[in-house]
Amino acid sequence: MVNVLFAAGGHRWRQYERPLREALARAGVKAKPSPDLDPGAADYVIYAPNPEFRDFRRCPHAKAVMSLWAGVEEILANSTLTQPLTRMVDSGLTEGMVEWVVGHVLRHHLGMDSHIVNPDHIWNFDPPPLARDRRVAILGLGELGSACARALAALNFGVMGWSRRPKRIDGVTCLQGRDGLKRILASADTLVLLLPLTPATQNLLDARTMALLPDGVILLNPGRGGLIDDEALLVALDAGRIAHATLDVFREEPLPNGHPFWKHPGVTVTPHQASETRPGSASDLIAENIRRCEANEPMLHLVDRKAGY
Amino acid sequence: MVNVLFAAGGHRWRQYERPLREALARAGVKAKPSPDLDPGAADYVIYAPNPEFRDFRRCPHAKAVMSLWAGVEEILANSTLTQPLTRMVDSGLTEGMVEWVVGHVLRHHLGMDSHIVNPDHIWNFDPPPLARDRRVAILGLGELGSACARALAALNFGVMGWSRRPKRIDGVTCLQGRDGLKRILASADTLVLLLPLTPATQNLLDARTMALLPDGVILLNPGRGGLIDDEALLVALDAGRIAHATLDVFREEPLPNGHPFWKHPGVTVTPHQASETRPGSASDLIAENIRRCEANEPMLHLVDRKAGY
Repeated sequence: MVNVLFAAGGHRWRQYERPLREALARAGVKAKPSPDLDPGAADYVIYAPNPEFRDFRRCPHAKAVMSLWAGVEEILANSTLTQPLTRMVDSGLTEGMVEWVVGHVLRHHLGMDSHIVNPDHIWNFDPPPLARDRRVAILGLGELGSACARALAALNFGVMGWSRRPKRIDGVTCLQGRDGLKRILASADTLVLLLPLTPATQNLLDARTMALLPDGVILLNPGRGGLIDDEALLVALDAGRIAHATLDVFREEPLPNGHPFWKHPGVTVTPHQASETRPGSASDLIAENIRRCEANEPMLHLVDRKAGY
Repeated sequence: MVNVLFAAGGHRWRQYERPLREALARAGVKAKPSPDLDPGAADYVIYAPNPEFRDFRRCPHAKAVMSLWAGVEEILANSTLTQPLTRMVDSGLTEGMVEWVVGHVLRHHLGMDSHIVNPDHIWNFDPPPLARDRRVAILGLGELGSACARALAALNFGVMGWSRRPKRIDGVTCLQGRDGLKRILASADTLVLLLPLTPATQNLLDARTMALLPDGVILLNPGRGGLIDDEALLVALDAGRIAHATLDVFREEPLPNGHPFWKHPGVTVTPHQASETRPGSASDLIAENIRRCEANEPMLHLVDRKAGY
């Protein structure tokens, strides 16, 4: 029996308990994952940064620490970690992002909100335009942005993408540079932010760039909270220049109670659900890595500490 | 100058005026479409059944009557019609249906309603399952049903379809017959009705067939109102056995004020928008047919009166 400590925060255990047990059984690993295991007895530690567990010296016998997150900067900064570390590579993360982005693009495209909340029982005959008459602009064409661009193009949306480095995606107009940014902002019906957060992209969407957007644009941000100047967004929403913003990420999460985004009729808050690691697919990788380690095979996605990923 | 009478109901003129003028200009046809033209002067009649215009003898010089609808049973039943009749074949109809079905499947999949209406500002960390862990069942695999099945399968949903005749669609489990219907109903997370309305499909979803559905199923009906026994649906919704019904079609349209569907918290009403002929693409076909007729070329989609379509 292999002892697996689940030290990724109590609220996650509820989501992971069943998928983990099932994945371990499928992988043929006799293991009992638990959040209550004595750390000193742990053979493996499943981990995400959380206030309850910060000292890896408590697990001197652990053969590996397995991150539930793709980004491991925070774990690597913990000097008590001496065990091998694996990072999460989860196809579910891309799939979930595509589902969130396509879903919310279609929601706004179809004007669903006016049907979901329709207290006056208004029957409005006008059909919406077709997807092929709508332009969706995606800032950021990494793995997530490219996957969303392809899925939206397959549904006939006119898709434009903007990225730092030149890209080619079938059926998608790919732009770069300052002029490309101006062009893409000027012609978007829906704008999707999927850029990484770097000094160059911090507050990329501020009063100046928002002024380039067509009136009545829809904004979706499943990328990073820091890409947007929140104050400028509220001004643009109040003026009706941005018709609606659906935001999944925020400078502070959970979004604090009392934050104006919660109450603004032009904002929909979703709880950082677009890019969450999915228990099902994540559990498969963890089970496979435990199987490999127990069989003396090399683990997948071992972190290179010098490179930082 | 060609005289084109728009006799498809006043409320539609607002939607068609601009697309028609643009399509005629693109086709190089010098024509002035108008709802106010003297019928006696009409060279062409653009038509959908409506109470204001029922007598085609008013247009003795019309070279063709052009239906805005794909189904022309009602027009053919009008004995005053002696002119050639064309029917609508509109790629926009299929595209619009795919957009509506994929949009509402994703809406329920992502639990959007709880974010769109969230007065208590609840931040719920649990991500939804992935599309590949959801099963969508589509009843009816004609042009519309097949297109929806393919689009949902491309987004990784587990898609099953049921049809009268055997079908093969890549990535879709296709079933037939009574046993197939039982199987598909028993395993649907989301059920989409896209069957034609015939004596065999009238009230197909009644108390008996609803009892076969898993508890908490989502129902989407963009097909025909008569496919559902409305009373049985209300009972199943009240009991929570059907978690939500999003309905685009009804036995009477517009859905009468005071109908229980308007007020039921488990029902979303959309105003027959999923399969509406789209002014843009429909105008292209009409302009092309006027161009052809004026050039003595055969018109597209001329109705065979014996066959009825």
